[in-house]
Amino acid sequence: MTLHEPPRFPRGFRCAATHCGIKHGTEPDLSLFASEQPATAAAVFTRNQVPGAPVVVGRERIRGGRLQAVVVNSRVANVGTGAEGVERARRMGSATASALGIDEELVLMSSTGVIGVPLPIEKIEAALPGLAGELQDDPMVGARGMMTTDTHPKAVSLPVGEDATLTVVGKGAGMIAPNMATMLVYAFTDAALDGPAVDRRLRAAVDRTFNMLSVDSDTSTSDTCALLANGLSGPVSEDRFGDALVEAFVSMTEMLARDGEGADTLLRVTVTGAASVEDARSVARSLVDSPLVKTMVAGGDPNVGRILMAVGKCFGARIEPDAIGAHISGIPVLEAGRRTGFDESAVRRVLGQDPVDLEVDLGVGEHRARAWGCDLTHGYIEENASYYSS
Amino acid sequence: MTLHEPPRFPRGFRCAATHCGIKHGTEPDLSLFASEQPATAAAVFTRNQVPGAPVVVGRERIRGGRLQAVVVNSRVANVGTGAEGVERARRMGSATASALGIDEELVLMSSTGVIGVPLPIEKIEAALPGLAGELQDDPMVGARGMMTTDTHPKAVSLPVGEDATLTVVGKGAGMIAPNMATMLVYAFTDAALDGPAVDRRLRAAVDRTFNMLSVDSDTSTSDTCALLANGLSGPVSEDRFGDALVEAFVSMTEMLARDGEGADTLLRVTVTGAASVEDARSVARSLVDSPLVKTMVAGGDPNVGRILMAVGKCFGARIEPDAIGAHISGIPVLEAGRRTGFDESAVRRVLGQDPVDLEVDLGVGEHRARAWGCDLTHGYIEENASYYSS
Repeated sequence: MTLHEPPRFPRGFRCAATHCGIKHGTEPDLSLFASEQPATAAAVFTRNQVPGAPVVVGRERIRGGRLQAVVVNSRVANVGTGAEGVERARRMGSATASALGIDEELVLMSSTGVIGVPLPIEKIEAALPGLAGELQDDPMVGARGMMTTDTHPKAVSLPVGEDATLTVVGKGAGMIAPNMATMLVYAFTDAALDGPAVDRRLRAAVDRTFNMLSVDSDTSTSDTCALLANGLSGPVSEDRFGDALVEAFVSMTEMLARDGEGADTLLRVTVTGAASVEDARSVARSLVDSPLVKTMVAGGDPNVGRILMAVGKCFGARIEPDAIGAHISGIPVLEAGRRTGFDESAVRRVLGQDPVDLEVDLGVGEHRARAWGCDLTHGYIEENASYYSS
Repeated sequence: MTLHEPPRFPRGFRCAATHCGIKHGTEPDLSLFASEQPATAAAVFTRNQVPGAPVVVGRERIRGGRLQAVVVNSRVANVGTGAEGVERARRMGSATASALGIDEELVLMSSTGVIGVPLPIEKIEAALPGLAGELQDDPMVGARGMMTTDTHPKAVSLPVGEDATLTVVGKGAGMIAPNMATMLVYAFTDAALDGPAVDRRLRAAVDRTFNMLSVDSDTSTSDTCALLANGLSGPVSEDRFGDALVEAFVSMTEMLARDGEGADTLLRVTVTGAASVEDARSVARSLVDSPLVKTMVAGGDPNVGRILMAVGKCFGARIEPDAIGAHISGIPVLEAGRRTGFDESAVRRVLGQDPVDLEVDLGVGEHRARAWGCDLTHGYIEENASYYSS
């Protein structure tokens, strides 16, 4: 399948964004996504035990299995704000429902940004009626209003079956680690799918993609991934839809990883030869999470012994040190647990390119997994040492 | 108890160090510690599943419960070096035993530095006879020969009971995470203790100190903590010795954390009010491991909502968001899960001091734990983006 370039919406979906006054300056900080009719929907949320108020309300709403709109603000996360925060999240949904003339139970709210600061709900309420009148067809507009430390808006779309479209809009950057959900991502389709299929395919695709993404090993309190299927283009085979969803999510995962805070390079780790899928996943995650592997990529320094360290610290996995092999972007760097006599300048060269593909063969089984991450650079320190104040 | 200043050795222990040619330049890269008679001994080693060759041999040797010498080289870790690496680790021990005129089973070897590079054993063998003739009384000399990215040598000593002394020598800096053992630390005492007491007290002290230390969440392949008791000062109460060992290990843990790669500040986290000790430990570790908490300390930025995030990502712990309280160096910043109205300039001021004491009360029980870490700075990136080459 080929991605639509530029990304477009499925039938019946539109979006709008505005600067309502939460961010300093004039960048948009409020986005609205809406379907012209209610959609079958599913969502997964962060496992963080201090979830944001919108996550608390979102978990209740998604039980109904139907959504028609998503409203998102950036800069303030509405987390650590108690009962008052939950009340403000509900008000954000009510204002959206009024502006669109729909049932408030069909609105999903998200907030992303600083934790522990009250949501400026009056600014949001004041902006929503106007925003509902500005709905338009470019998904990048809505993506832009969700950005925090992202350097660019993120959306992908692709065809599904004969006539339907799948569009995925997301934001990421920091506080991203594998334990669903790790960012804000909304998938919209005009394919007709039943509730169980929407839920099943969302969970399966998230498990293989966003749950295997790590920018910094920190797990956000806010994050959410939802799928809305409004059915306007009629039925599509569930398998075909599931494949498209995985493809779109892989594409979004790579965008999020490459745009990780301060990141210069997408790090793609493939683990093969594992004794179980769980082992393969745990080793792949250990490699994308390791600060020493990430700084090796940042520096282009062929300190490949760190790969052995990051494999070995998976205490629960079956590891035979003398069976481990590894390639960096096609160049063999470890064989039978030992450094090969690789050409250091060639390895430096591929470490300086984007993406870096690290393939690790555990040599003890038949299972495999892939994880996505990024390098660890001065930029990460720069952004996070002063994020609150800036 | 008061630490000896400067640190000194217990009766019968001495050390020496030299530049044998593994490091570039002239800094010492080989250290020897020896007791004038065999000592009752215990040791704990890294849980990394790709352990260094000296760890493989060390695990065999410590079963005998007796050691008389420790030999350590820096710059090359002898990890990922296969059967040849194990053979070279044994040769390092044999050369030490010959030089000292003792049984080779009484020698513990350690190597620390780059992974996957062959150990230059001939340089070590050539240097050892001379080194054995240079044994002297300052533990800092031996500590210096073990340094990698450490900025200074580390040793502490203190009295135990009436007449005995306990001396702890260590090195740390990077690839340090809580899962024993996380660095090289050797404890020497002239107290007389039996084998089970030495083993029991070592494990108990490590569990409360080095196992709660994290510089970067990466777990080294090499690291080792050993305790040698040569008995020259006669018996000491086991409890009194155990208290001294914990005190000395806390002191060494704080030195290692403060000298973490690129670190400017010691971060001391105390978790109280937990439903179990395991919960308290897991939350304390999550806080010292979180890149977003660590960069908050580095930047002096009062982004205290990140504390809620790092507590909430302990998926297995009992967490009630509305019960969480926190203080930063005595200033209340969270109460009942919400930001207090704290004075931001006061919090900036204490975040700029060393150490930073973060106290988190989970408010759901009576258990507590402490963990140690450091800030995450540009210096960490600097050192690790080019460690192999420099």
